[in-house]
Amino acid sequence: MRMSELSDTTGVAVPTLKYYLREGLLHPGERTSPNQAQYDRTHVDRVRLVRALIEVGGLPIARAADVVAAMQRDGLGLSSVFGIAQRAVSERVLPDEVRDGDPVDPFGPLPIRTEGERMVAELCAARRWNVHATNPGLAMAARVLDTYAKLGQHRLHGVLSDYADAADRIAAADLASVARAGEETHGDTTTMTDVVIVGTVLGDALIAGLRRIAQEAESFRRFPEPPTTAAERAATREQDPTC
Amino acid sequence: MRMSELSDTTGVAVPTLKYYLREGLLHPGERTSPNQAQYDRTHVDRVRLVRALIEVGGLPIARAADVVAAMQRDGLGLSSVFGIAQRAVSERVLPDEVRDGDPVDPFGPLPIRTEGERMVAELCAARRWNVHATNPGLAMAARVLDTYAKLGQHRLHGVLSDYADAADRIAAADLASVARAGEETHGDTTTMTDVVIVGTVLGDALIAGLRRIAQEAESFRRFPEPPTTAAERAATREQDPTC
Repeated sequence: MRMSELSDTTGVAVPTLKYYLREGLLHPGERTSPNQAQYDRTHVDRVRLVRALIEVGGLPIARAADVVAAMQRDGLGLSSVFGIAQRAVSERVLPDEVRDGDPVDPFGPLPIRTEGERMVAELCAARRWNVHATNPGLAMAARVLDTYAKLGQHRLHGVLSDYADAADRIAAADLASVARAGEETHGDTTTMTDVVIVGTVLGDALIAGLRRIAQEAESFRRFPEPPTTAAERAATREQDPTC
Repeated sequence: MRMSELSDTTGVAVPTLKYYLREGLLHPGERTSPNQAQYDRTHVDRVRLVRALIEVGGLPIARAADVVAAMQRDGLGLSSVFGIAQRAVSERVLPDEVRDGDPVDPFGPLPIRTEGERMVAELCAARRWNVHATNPGLAMAARVLDTYAKLGQHRLHGVLSDYADAADRIAAADLASVARAGEETHGDTTTMTDVVIVGTVLGDALIAGLRRIAQEAESFRRFPEPPTTAAERAATREQDPTC
């Protein structure tokens, strides 16, 4: 198909498609004349993936480009692909001092420079979470724990063990999806990589969404609000910005 | 203290503090002369909270302002505060059609306009998650599920039940923190509101961080990579962008 058709099929404007081509987010089509190229199903799939990473996963374009580049590297172990997908969705929450600090030896001990990092390292030891010292989740989690302390909210450290249980459950489901994809495709690594990338980047938003639903349900259970009359409900509907 | 001291104490530049004052992110100090005002401990706390919401929670400034405004409204039920905190961290992942669409009746049935919304509504019914139809998590979760389908990744729908179990566990821990804060302060709603806001906004990043750690640990367990020699590890350390 020509670029105009690729645009019609995906709903992405031609100038945006040209931008994706320039930035390497989209692989070149097959040139049929100096000014024309043909695109196929793989281009449609790629454009849809890029839109999902940016719009639903909330990735900046540069990070989406990193992810796409990672998917094109052959022979990458699944752990490495996980690393790249994780990094792509982590950068925005990592402070400069973590990103640009002294290089950490990936095979060395987990960094313990703050109280939050100490808590995370202890958690990893207790749960036998065997990870590289460069796993971006270490810095993300430690930073939140340090911020809780800085805000005087030490009591929020109490959630750590339950959150870790939840993370284990989530990770098991994530890896089961990857394994299932491997079985269905007889170990096709491209398919498995796709599952890793899409599931990691968009999964955060799915988990956050379900958390909000479960929070509200649990909140009503624990702190029931007085029953409202029909008149009050009508008033709420008009005034309450949360509704 | 004067504004220059507030700046020294919090590490936030004076022009930024003035901007926060103008935008309502920071409450005015007590005026001591036409050009001078005094600030106190409450201002230090507020500035730290605003920085945490923006830098660690990743909120845009306008959303942080909404959160701060919500905290200042007296007599708001805890469920409403949850709603505001949830909304503040959800806006960025909600598409325009969800934000600006037809108003949904908060007390009506859950919206079922897409396959993803149908899956979420069924999940809520099965788990007895009793929530308003305007809970932002409904749209967040449905959107990810619809995107999985659009990308041909229907197999990722398989994670839903495990993710929901995890969300229940997380929400129970979240509400337990709020209840604990209530017990410690004899039901001080300001403290409880603080816990809701900080825990909801920063908790997403903590969960995402722990998920990355658990994923890597589970990935090594399920898909062990061949043991590397010391020489290979040294080479990896230099070349691999994931390390």
